[in-house]
Amino acid sequence: MAKTLKEIAMFVGGELSGSPDIVIKGINGIKEAGEGDLSFIVSTQYEDLVEASGASCVVIPKQVKRSFSKPTIKVENPSTALSKILDVVLAGRIPHPKGVHPTAIVHENAKLAKTTALGAYTVIEEGASIGENTKVYPFCYIGKNTKIGRDCIFYPGVTIREEVVIGDRVIIHPGTVVGSDGFGYDIQKDGTQVKIPQIGIVIVEDDVELGSCVTIDRARFNKTVIGKGSKIDNLCQIAHNVIIGPDCVIAAQSGIAGSSELGRNVVFGGQVGVADHVKLGDFVIAGAKSGISKSHPAKTTLFWYPAKPVDKARDILASVGLLPKLFERVRALEAKIKELENK
Amino acid sequence: MAKTLKEIAMFVGGELSGSPDIVIKGINGIKEAGEGDLSFIVSTQYEDLVEASGASCVVIPKQVKRSFSKPTIKVENPSTALSKILDVVLAGRIPHPKGVHPTAIVHENAKLAKTTALGAYTVIEEGASIGENTKVYPFCYIGKNTKIGRDCIFYPGVTIREEVVIGDRVIIHPGTVVGSDGFGYDIQKDGTQVKIPQIGIVIVEDDVELGSCVTIDRARFNKTVIGKGSKIDNLCQIAHNVIIGPDCVIAAQSGIAGSSELGRNVVFGGQVGVADHVKLGDFVIAGAKSGISKSHPAKTTLFWYPAKPVDKARDILASVGLLPKLFERVRALEAKIKELENK
Amino acid sequence: MAKTLKEIAMFVGGELSGSPDIVIKGINGIKEAGEGDLSFIVSTQYEDLVEASGASCVVIPKQVKRSFSKPTIKVENPSTALSKILDVVLAGRIPHPKGVHPTAIVHENAKLAKTTALGAYTVIEEGASIGENTKVYPFCYIGKNTKIGRDCIFYPGVTIREEVVIGDRVIIHPGTVVGSDGFGYDIQKDGTQVKIPQIGIVIVEDDVELGSCVTIDRARFNKTVIGKGSKIDNLCQIAHNVIIGPDCVIAAQSGIAGSSELGRNVVFGGQVGVADHVKLGDFVIAGAKSGISKSHPAKTTLFWYPAKPVDKARDILASVGLLPKLFERVRALEAKIKELENK
Repeated sequence: MAKTLKEIAMFVGGELSGSPDIVIKGINGIKEAGEGDLSFIVSTQYEDLVEASGASCVVIPKQVKRSFSKPTIKVENPSTALSKILDVVLAGRIPHPKGVHPTAIVHENAKLAKTTALGAYTVIEEGASIGENTKVYPFCYIGKNTKIGRDCIFYPGVTIREEVVIGDRVIIHPGTVVGSDGFGYDIQKDGTQVKIPQIGIVIVEDDVELGSCVTIDRARFNKTVIGKGSKIDNLCQIAHNVIIGPDCVIAAQSGIAGSSELGRNVVFGGQVGVADHVKLGDFVIAGAKSGISKSHPAKTTLFWYPAKPVDKARDILASVGLLPKLFERVRALEAKIKELENK
Repeated sequence: MAKTLKEIAMFVGGELSGSPDIVIKGINGIKEAGEGDLSFIVSTQYEDLVEASGASCVVIPKQVKRSFSKPTIKVENPSTALSKILDVVLAGRIPHPKGVHPTAIVHENAKLAKTTALGAYTVIEEGASIGENTKVYPFCYIGKNTKIGRDCIFYPGVTIREEVVIGDRVIIHPGTVVGSDGFGYDIQKDGTQVKIPQIGIVIVEDDVELGSCVTIDRARFNKTVIGKGSKIDNLCQIAHNVIIGPDCVIAAQSGIAGSSELGRNVVFGGQVGVADHVKLGDFVIAGAKSGISKSHPAKTTLFWYPAKPVDKARDILASVGLLPKLFERVRALEAKIKELENK
Repeated sequence: MAKTLKEIAMFVGGELSGSPDIVIKGINGIKEAGEGDLSFIVSTQYEDLVEASGASCVVIPKQVKRSFSKPTIKVENPSTALSKILDVVLAGRIPHPKGVHPTAIVHENAKLAKTTALGAYTVIEEGASIGENTKVYPFCYIGKNTKIGRDCIFYPGVTIREEVVIGDRVIIHPGTVVGSDGFGYDIQKDGTQVKIPQIGIVIVEDDVELGSCVTIDRARFNKTVIGKGSKIDNLCQIAHNVIIGPDCVIAAQSGIAGSSELGRNVVFGGQVGVADHVKLGDFVIAGAKSGISKSHPAKTTLFWYPAKPVDKARDILASVGLLPKLFERVRALEAKIKELENK
């Protein structure tokens, strides 16, 4: 990058304390940063780390009152400021596809915008449409009649099957699959399973980010929905007819079974499981590995398997930890009772 | 679609009640259906929904005795009838590859049937063979000497490694990997791990369906087997030398460790784990997130981690839920005993 | 293969007992082997299986004192000996890419070694470098400035994003993704999530093996590290800034959350989860499905969810299994106390 502190402070609209001519060449965490690095702290609770850091400048929140011997830039939100800087740094670093590569196979009835970029070895089927400035990496497959908005990034090996609708600014990491068949079979009298056709669609709304190797199944009828701004981490499973509200954050390897619904701003730790036909209200939080089999109202925090409200789960787990001692206490009681009875 | 009720009733062999000339244009769930939609109920327990539905016609099971003000078609099995209709609707909707795309790279010693369809950017290695009417989407890789039957569908980005045998009518969703090396290492005295070569194969029998991003490892020796008609959902892991019987249904994110065996019609909820060298009999059912470390006989229903027969698991979980109260009761007993002792 | 016992004994440096001219045509497990097969046992505890085996020769460890009616080859480590044989057998069996396929798209500023092999439909970005004898299968994507060592094998559909460093002799199975963005967002006052740029890298050291559909995220800053010789099974998730020490063995579907650190020779069963910022010492073992939320010192064996040292977990689980009976015992005590009080 190589920018002066003056340039950086102006770019993020921050208040510089220290020499404006110092040159920054990299960005790093507060503990790992060295000479020439810019670093940051997100809140006042980390202000002790500033002086000790090897960074040449630290971006700090306005709330910090103390002054430091090293240059600082005060801003409203250091994390947002840093993201703004990083976006510029990254712009040159990641080789997003530009233009339409000659090996891209685009059906004559597919519609590309003027600035749609298709990498090498991409396949766009009949009736598909892709918006302005959307970048599609190699080995991506866009199915028939699928509509994709503008400013999206699809990394290598993403498969979007037919009739899917994807909004604007959606980021999809490698190997992710959207629109595969829901998992449904009718068992016959002889024990064999007959496939139930899955003719619904998937809607992925604006500003969604999907991690690597995420699987999102199409609905049996109707639609599976990933709500505006929701973020889904690597290796998650979203089954048919699931409805995820806006601004949810679902950590890796979580799975949501068929027809379940999440409200807005639901947050899951990793490896959470949700049974089918469950409804979770807005702002529900589930700790890692929770197994949720029932519906819960808004703002419930859940934990354990089977999942319970976290206070109850903690009481139970504390009790469970003391169980071997409880058995001893009961044995002691039984002995004493015997003694009393024999008196 | 646009078919009259008369045409639909004839096609599914059902008994129409209502005007034969009504035109159906779509299919939808009983609650979501509107004007021009065909819908269905699977059993008599849902018959209250028929009258309230916006559907123009509802397919109902023969057992329904009531009559309705809206058109109905009575059939033996509404779900099967609907699937039959949907198959026709979908036939035109999904753009399965046709013929052999000029960019398909087929080894001169690979054998394709006359009607094998290979999409763009597919790679078929030496000695591989693919049967009649099998459709292979873009970015699929078929390894050396692998044999694939007829009427299969492999969606984009499926990798089948060498020496694998796949039957007829097998459906494989995007990103799935069959035949990767089993996970086996010999630890050396210095703590390093030496890879154990995996020279066995995988057999995927007729009528199997594999979801997206499923991983099925080849055997160390011999074979890993997915039995006839079994269905395996997204993101499942099947380790080396696992034998899965016919007509099993394994929900998403489940994993089966090395050399374990499942009988026929075994059913798993999501995120189930099975340890290595475990045998589960026919018709075993495991609830979501169960962790199965031991063998269980046929027809056992399992739940929890570590998994137990469901009745036992329920008793235990009910007790666990009451644990904090049990501690209070024991404390009360201890106090009373002390009182009695001091008398 | 078709080799004589004399040739095989010489090749593995073993002591042959039996006719040197017998011809071996295949290799199989001790129970499954038949006429013409070579088999093996790994320790003396299996020596009863030798006589009963259908194998034409069995490789046995030096510790076996008994003599057998069938040919045997005594070696220090039968498993290692067999692996050595299998390596030769497999060399001809797996069709690794040779040379650079004409459809490989290699940026003019990428550097290939003389013996780098690129399969059909591979994409190598600007500044990437790949070492001698590394084999890259079809549909692999190697990002900008990524450095890959020698003697690696990347199976089909592997995606390595930009600025990643991969050592020598690394094996990566199909569909695996290295270097996707870490999962990090700043929540705004209006509840929306703003992406935190992830500008760190991933380092995959020498002799690592990654299974199929593994996801390894790049660091926010700095690096995510997979230590020398570590083995990671299918469908595992390694989050941003995770540091895995050397010679770890992580079984399928396990996940490690952001910034956690594993020492050397850590072993996980399947479906283990580790929370963020956890440190596990050298030689820690975690049983399948364990949910690890806290740091643990070296040599701890963990089990259950939330994970505890295994002795404690076993005590607790034994107690939990007896809980319904404990409730009965407490009820009986309460009745007796009432009786005593009423005396």
